[in-house]
This record gives sequence, C-alpha cells and structure tokens, in this order.
Amino acid sequence: MRNITRGELENASLLQLKDICEEIREEIFSTVSACGGHLSSNLGAVELTVALHRMFNFPKDKIVFDVGHQCYPHKLLSGRADRFHTLRQEGGISGFPKRTESEYDCYDTGHAGTAISAALGIAKARDLKKEDFHVIALVGDGSFNNGLIYEALNSIRILKSNILIILNDNGMSISSTVGGTHDILEEMKGGHASSEDIRLFERYGLSYMGVYNGNDMNETLSALKEAKERLQEGSVLLHVVTKKGQGYPFCEAAPEETHGVSPQGKQKSKEYSEALGEELTALAETKDNIVAITAAMTDALGLRGFYNKFPERSFDVGICEEHASVLCAALAAGGMKPYYAVYSTFLQRSFDELIHDICGQNLPVTICVDRAGISGADGETHQGVFDLSFLSLIPNLTIGVPKDIGEFRAMLRLSADYPKPFVIRYPRCGVDGKIPKIEVGKFDILHSTMSDIIVLATGERCISLAKKVRERAVNEHMDFTLVNARFVKPLDEELLKARTEHHIITLEDNVLKGGFGEAVGNFYRNSGKKVHNFGYRDCFIPHGDAEELSQEYGLNEEEIFRCIKDVYARG
Amino acid sequence: MRNITRGELENASLLQLKDICEEIREEIFSTVSACGGHLSSNLGAVELTVALHRMFNFPKDKIVFDVGHQCYPHKLLSGRADRFHTLRQEGGISGFPKRTESEYDCYDTGHAGTAISAALGIAKARDLKKEDFHVIALVGDGSFNNGLIYEALNSIRILKSNILIILNDNGMSISSTVGGTHDILEEMKGGHASSEDIRLFERYGLSYMGVYNGNDMNETLSALKEAKERLQEGSVLLHVVTKKGQGYPFCEAAPEETHGVSPQGKQKSKEYSEALGEELTALAETKDNIVAITAAMTDALGLRGFYNKFPERSFDVGICEEHASVLCAALAAGGMKPYYAVYSTFLQRSFDELIHDICGQNLPVTICVDRAGISGADGETHQGVFDLSFLSLIPNLTIGVPKDIGEFRAMLRLSADYPKPFVIRYPRCGVDGKIPKIEVGKFDILHSTMSDIIVLATGERCISLAKKVRERAVNEHMDFTLVNARFVKPLDEELLKARTEHHIITLEDNVLKGGFGEAVGNFYRNSGKKVHNFGYRDCFIPHGDAEELSQEYGLNEEEIFRCIKDVYARG
Repeated sequence: MRNITRGELENASLLQLKDICEEIREEIFSTVSACGGHLSSNLGAVELTVALHRMFNFPKDKIVFDVGHQCYPHKLLSGRADRFHTLRQEGGISGFPKRTESEYDCYDTGHAGTAISAALGIAKARDLKKEDFHVIALVGDGSFNNGLIYEALNSIRILKSNILIILNDNGMSISSTVGGTHDILEEMKGGHASSEDIRLFERYGLSYMGVYNGNDMNETLSALKEAKERLQEGSVLLHVVTKKGQGYPFCEAAPEETHGVSPQGKQKSKEYSEALGEELTALAETKDNIVAITAAMTDALGLRGFYNKFPERSFDVGICEEHASVLCAALAAGGMKPYYAVYSTFLQRSFDELIHDICGQNLPVTICVDRAGISGADGETHQGVFDLSFLSLIPNLTIGVPKDIGEFRAMLRLSADYPKPFVIRYPRCGVDGKIPKIEVGKFDILHSTMSDIIVLATGERCISLAKKVRERAVNEHMDFTLVNARFVKPLDEELLKARTEHHIITLEDNVLKGGFGEAVGNFYRNSGKKVHNFGYRDCFIPHGDAEELSQEYGLNEEEIFRCIKDVYARG
Repeated sequence: MRNITRGELENASLLQLKDICEEIREEIFSTVSACGGHLSSNLGAVELTVALHRMFNFPKDKIVFDVGHQCYPHKLLSGRADRFHTLRQEGGISGFPKRTESEYDCYDTGHAGTAISAALGIAKARDLKKEDFHVIALVGDGSFNNGLIYEALNSIRILKSNILIILNDNGMSISSTVGGTHDILEEMKGGHASSEDIRLFERYGLSYMGVYNGNDMNETLSALKEAKERLQEGSVLLHVVTKKGQGYPFCEAAPEETHGVSPQGKQKSKEYSEALGEELTALAETKDNIVAITAAMTDALGLRGFYNKFPERSFDVGICEEHASVLCAALAAGGMKPYYAVYSTFLQRSFDELIHDICGQNLPVTICVDRAGISGADGETHQGVFDLSFLSLIPNLTIGVPKDIGEFRAMLRLSADYPKPFVIRYPRCGVDGKIPKIEVGKFDILHSTMSDIIVLATGERCISLAKKVRERAVNEHMDFTLVNARFVKPLDEELLKARTEHHIITLEDNVLKGGFGEAVGNFYRNSGKKVHNFGYRDCFIPHGDAEELSQEYGLNEEEIFRCIKDVYARG
C-alpha cells in the first residue's frame, strides 16, 4: 500500500477518510492472508485509528497500544505502508509495536494490561521535562479484566499527569470477555451508562466520555475532539465500541477464529491443543475431580470441547494469569485436580504464584504450557524460550517435555494421579505418536550405539533435529546414542550416572541460561566428561520463521553436526 | 498463653470476650517484643478475629488471610497459644498461615492479593464436592490496590461460589495506603458510602455491608451474624474499619514503624536501605532525571527522606509491583532515570514486566533489590533466594552484588549513568566500607595467594563466610585466593580465563539452581578444572535464624572448610 501523509489525512473529506479506511482494510486483509497475523482485532480499529491520526500529531504525540493486536492501521499510517507486506517475516514489519522499528511506536507491547501504566510513565516524564504533547493509551475491553490495569488506574490520582485512555470495547478478549467488569461494560453499552458508572471512573481521577461508535468516522472524530479539550483539565477515559472483524462479514461472524490467522495455504500439522482437549475430556469422564482453567484463550488451547461438556468444571477467568494460578492452587487445596492451560510467555505473569501458591504448598496442579520454544512470527514477547529456566529453579516442580503428541497424552494421563505440581511444556504443532508407558524422571533411549557420543534431546523440535543430524552422521559412518529427555526436572540421574560415553550433547528449545543443558553439565561437573549444550543465546529473539530462527539463534544443525565430526576427528 | 477452646468463646459474655481480647493483645505484644514480628497489624485485628471464631466453626469453616500480617490472633485461638512464644523461631510457630502447621490454616500466604482468589478456589471445590461450610477471605485495604484482587473480583460472577470477603480497612498498607481505591474507601468510611459505591460491588456479584467498627466487639458480632445470613444468597463484602496498633497508643501513633518490629535488644547493624536513601538523594541533587519508585514500602526501603525532599520525583504506587515495573520502563523511555526499590521476593511479581518492559526494551532502569538472600524469620515467602536465578536468565540485564555498603554506594553511583537495566541485590543489614572504584562486570581480588584454590564469593554474607573459612585454613597452613564477585552478570570472563587455579569454589546467598555458581561452572565446562558450588538446595526454606538457616541449607562453613582440606589432602 502507498504511504499516506499526515497532510493528506488532515485535508481529506469525510468521504475520502472512508476511502482511506477501505484501503487500509484491504491491505490488512490481503497481508494477513499471506503472512498470517491478527486480523479481526485490527479490522475493528481502522476508523478509530484513522481518526486518531487526523486529530493527533504523531510521533510528537504518543500512543501506547495495549497488547498490540490493534496496531496494524497505525503502522499503515506511519510511513510503513510500503513495507507492510513484510509483516511478521524475518527482518520485516513486526506484528507488535516496536520502538526500534519506528519513532511512531513509543513503547513495545505484546502482553495485556501494560498500556495505562506505560502511558502514565511517558506522561510523567513529559511533565517533569516540561514538554508538551499528548499521551494516549488504547486498551481493549479484554485487558480491563487484567489486574495490572487496576494497579494503573489506582495510580492516576497519585501521578497527576494527564493521559487519554481509549477503551476500545469490542466485547472480546481472544475469547469473549468474561466476568464482572465485562457485565458492567455491557450495561453501559446498552445505553445504561448510569451516573454511578461514570462516577466510578471519576473517582479514579478520570473524566468519562462514552459510549461512542468507534466504527463511525464522524462520531469518532467529534468524540476525539472533545476528549482532546478535556485533556487540558485532567485524564480522560473515552469509551468507544467497535466491531471485531468490521467490514468482513465472515470475520464479524467468527471473531475468535479470525482473531489470529495463519498464512493461507500453509499446511498445519496436528496441534497439541487438540490432544489436550481430547485427553482431558476422556480423563474427566472417569475422574470427578478434574477441572480446567484458562485465561481468555479457551479455543486456542484446545479446551472448547471440554468446556462445553463440563461447564461446571471449566473456568475461563479472563486475562488474569495470576488469579488463574492462585485459583488452581486453592482448587487443589480443596481436593480438585486442576489443569491450567496457558501459553509459555503468559505463564511469566504467574511466576510469583507458581512459586508460592502452587509449588510452595506443593499442590497437585498440572500446568499445560503451550507455545513453548520459539513460536516464530509473533516475535520477542511470544517466544516461549525462558520457561525451562524459570520453571527449573522452582522447588517441588516436575517438568515433562513430550517428544510428540503420543507422549503428551501419556503425560496428561500420568499427571491425573500425580500428587505434586506438574508442568508439561509443548509447542503448538507436532506429530502424533504411540502412547508410551512413562515414568516421572525417566528418559527414553531412542537409539543405542557403541559410539562415544550421547545426545540428550528434549522436546519435539530437538528430537527431530537430532534425528536429522544422525542421518547425516550415519551417512558419514559416524553415529551416536540418542536419548529422549522426557523430563527436565527431575533429571534421570540413574541413566546419566550409568552412561559411559565421554561426549554428551544436549539440545533444548529454550535459552541455554538456566536450562536443561546446564543442568546436565552441572550433573557431570568434575567427571572428566565433555558436555556440549545447544540451545538459544542470551538475547531476545525477534519475529520470523520459527525454524529459521531456531537454527539462527542456537539450535543449528550444522554446528551440532560439526560438534560430532570434531569428536570423531579427535578420535 | 493458655489455649482457649471454642466452647469457652461460645459461652463467653461480652465482657469475657473483651478480656480474651486483652489477653490476646498482651500475648502478641510480649511475644513480638521478644521474637520480632508483625505488631500493629495484628493488634488491630483482635476483636474481629475473636468475633470470627465465635461466629464461625473453624477448621470446618475456612479462613484465608491475605498476606497474613493479621493472623496471630487466629493462631492464638486455634490451639497454638501454648506454642506461640516460639514465633518465627526455627521449628516454632510461623509468622504466616501455614497448612503444615495447623488444620486451622487452610491456605499459605505471605504476599498481597491472593486471598479472594484462594477463597474462591476453596469455595468452588466445596461446591463441586457438595460439601457445606463457609469460606472467608480477610483482606486489608492495602491489598485492594493490588491487581490480583481485581482479577479475583472479576471472577465472582463467573465462579458462582459464595464467599465472605472481609475488607479490614485500617488505611494502611505497610506504608499508608495510596491512590484512587484508597480515596474511595476513605469516602465510604467518612459516612459517604453512597449507593454508587455499594452498587459497584454489587455489580461484581457482592452484597455490600459496611462500614462497621471492627474494634467494637458488639458491632462486629452482629455484622458477622448478618453477613452469615446473607451468605446463603450470595457472596458478601463486609467492610470493617479497624485501628492499626489498637490498644497500644505508641503503636496507634506510629503504625508504619510498628508494623514489623525486630526483637527488643537485638543490636541492628547498619542498613543498606539507609545508604540507598542517602546516595539517591545526593545523586538526585545533581541529576534532574532521577526518580524513585516504591510499592508501599517507602520507609522500609529507606526512601522516606528522598520522598520528602523530592516529592515530585517520588512515586509510591501501592502494592503494585507489576505496575511499578512498567511505570519505570515508561519513565525511562521518556528520558528519566528510575530507581525502583523492592524486596527480592516481591520482585517475583514483576517477572514478566522485567522481561518485556524493562529488559526487552533495554531501558536504563535501576532495580534496588533489598532483602536478598535468606532473610530469616519471615520464612518461605520472604527468603530472597531465587533472584540471582530468575534475573540471570533475562537478556540485557546487569546484576551487581555489593560486598558491603561502601560498594553498594559505588554501584548506585555507577548506575546513574548506566544506559541499560541494572539490578543491585543486597541484604537488609551489613557493614560499611570504603567506596571503591568499580567497573561493570569486573571482579575484585581481595586476597591473592599461590594456592591452587580460588574462592569466588558474591555478596556480603558469602564474603564474610569466606573470610571465616580462610582464617581457619590459614591456622592449618592452608590458604586460597579470595575474589569478590561483584557482578553475577556479566561474569568477569577475562579474570576467569586468566586464573590458573585448578580448584574453584563459589559461594552465593541464593539457590544453586540457575545461580552464580552454575554460571561459573558452565564457564569452566570442559576445562579440566574442578568447580565446587556452595549455595542453597532446591527446596523452600522455612523461618528461623538467618545465619543458622544459611548454614543448614547449604552455605555451610564446615563443608566449605572440608572442601578446601580435601584439595590439600589430595595434593
């Protein structure tokens, strides 16, 4: 798409603005169809963003996008339209706001709930430096479930720096928004915005304006005009309603399915989440104590079927990962067997509760950690490359890493009667496999040789990589013993002790720092054996193709092969 | 104190109940004077707790204490009065609720904001199992700043399991409660509990009752009676006001200073927090961009002086560690130099924001991590033994560990112009020292010998331990080179590379898993050198004397000495 200048926006008639919206929508639709990305959330925010760019002076004025699922129109209006076709590809436009990409992006986001805090910080810095510009936080209603938002609201009167909060209310998180706050917003939208609701926001130091139709250009423009005026006096909350998927009827009809979409034509392999749904449903039929908990991601995590079948044992608590963890701990304390399904990086939000509530009390919660390892196109905030490290350091925790979906099923079954905290970490997609007999803390020897090299690989990507390397090695008359390290904690110390190989190679889809390989290296400390770790370097990994990134950042087939060749060369 | 039975409570007259309150107060005061602990918070909750024990049937009914700073009266009324004099001592009564200590403690706490989530989980498990008892969450007003509370409130309509939330409003966190929520509560207490406020809670699915005087036995008993009845219909929020420190005028007058007290007569050494206040104040006088952020702990962190001197550059945001981190990141993005002071274990609440907001954007925030290492009497939830591990795994982060208060000052000064995220971790108390010249990532050789042993110690406790061990060694004609490992990240790789010793011993006041020693071991991997790590085992460390616990859980003088002896013995 062509780049649209600020001048063009300022001089455009209402009709021309609508044409620009159309242009933006088409660009988003065609690019996301080709590259994958967030579709419906962005389609809903087009008019609102065009109006914002007309009424405000970016990049002098600043806008923080909560999560960032609505930032594509902004990117298209800030000099990046001509590069937008590179969306989510390595070296291309990021799917999230990124300071290093453009001065129009003033703050990086990716997880929910940070925008108001960030806007307040930027506004406070502005005031301290006696600068003069506007700061806007654009927040979806789903984020209004997240505790961080309330921590920020509580600060508005403390910080006394004016910001404009736009509540973009489309009734959806990734799943439908749930809970008390949602009910309040729904009432307000239904024309029942009472003085009470308005007064609530006012008590937090916000002047409330709402409810406006954020897909109506005229209405949005005049609302923003008024908001800008009120902003002279204090912080403003502008409540607009938009339609997720607006402009594309099949998106409007299925906003959850079209929230994030894969590139068209790309063959999807089997998803672990499907297996989670199937297994948990089967388990729950015989075990009354099984309950499932999600934080606004029920479909993506594969649990819609379970939730439909066992509504009274299913809890989508909204984007509330901390609360979800405590709830699980307490359900377990009360005799239930909770399964908490969550993406790897979102689990970072529960770190303290994992430590104290779940592991400190040693309660039998099973945590299904989806999207573990490099996930690819979503970039830094979504690469699940830290979990093995931050989970390994927590006492009382067992960590299983299945090599395929069959083994994943086996772990889910095992966990049902396991009396302690249990994490299973897995990527999005994988291959099916037999359901093996497994035992906690026991590795599985996949291929045994007389070679002096043993490869310990953990998780599907690494097992598959090890197999590729082995093929090449065998072609060159070399070989190694290959072990499926099913458990990263506890390690299979019995096996490790018994092995006689002098060269140990570890592979993990995780940063090296604090991960599996270092644990193995630590075990063999002072043994005289040589331990070589492969995993990711100590840095943030940007967006791109998952396989390519994985090779580039440390799980490199060539390097692993060379490592084996070196051992043979030295005899 | 004698154990008081439920029968005695049930049959007591109002006058007798007041006597029991007096007895409890005296026991708390005398025990806390001797053992240290939380004083004013517990004194304020005496009548409320006696009334709860009269009106409810514990342990069949369940009560979850948010944080747990108000649980002493409950402990005294649940068969633990005769052991209460062992408070916070190794093997004695914990200062926090503990399931393993008594069936009257149904859920372990220690950090703010978990009680409503926990109560909901226990109540939901009850309903699923078709059991019949009451579940109560007792929450201070300070916790109503914490985001987790709102995540839980949002869930009340989702979970549909009745609980009684008692908001024990004493106007204080550890510091005074701050922010919008506090202002709302203050208005309600001032007799202005309007229909709006009440309706707000009702929209979250709570029947609101308030405001009652929680130090008035009669009023509290009748409020609880009504609450119990309303609980048949749905969840209830009971708003009571109590006076922190009630019954002891000097506690009432200084509730922050008497919130947590040290055992009487125990000599306090110099506190790092004092130096923080002094240095930051001096730095801020010449550097306009310095701002300070705390989460409800301003005095304990040593920043009251700074806050008084630079009110416009000081932000106590309440018990909101997530928000504090994002705010810091945004202030830094806006050109400020934020210092965020926080206790080690509370920083766990900011883990995701540390990763994404601060380190992901590589912003120059300095995080002053107080109470790092084993802190002792507060037990599991307050032992700062994980931070080196969970911080080391985060890219872009520099971690400094001063060996004394002089070095701490040097690091604070250095950090003022440091362009990246910088953590300084330190214990509560320490010794003063000269202010050395330091360089990021450079160790300091404290004592150099020709021995084949080098000891790398990080932080004050470990340096002091190493010196003790060295004295013993020298007495037996042995010696070692002693290095002050000032930085845990980055390691001083140049020094490590240059050293010729074959035996490397590391000491850290942190769990071994993922910590300093493993990083050193990893560096020397495959070098033929022997690396021995001393630090804490992979378990939760209970309350007790900090020095004794440290020896017991892994920093053992005897074992380190033996390690050195063994090296000499083997020649």
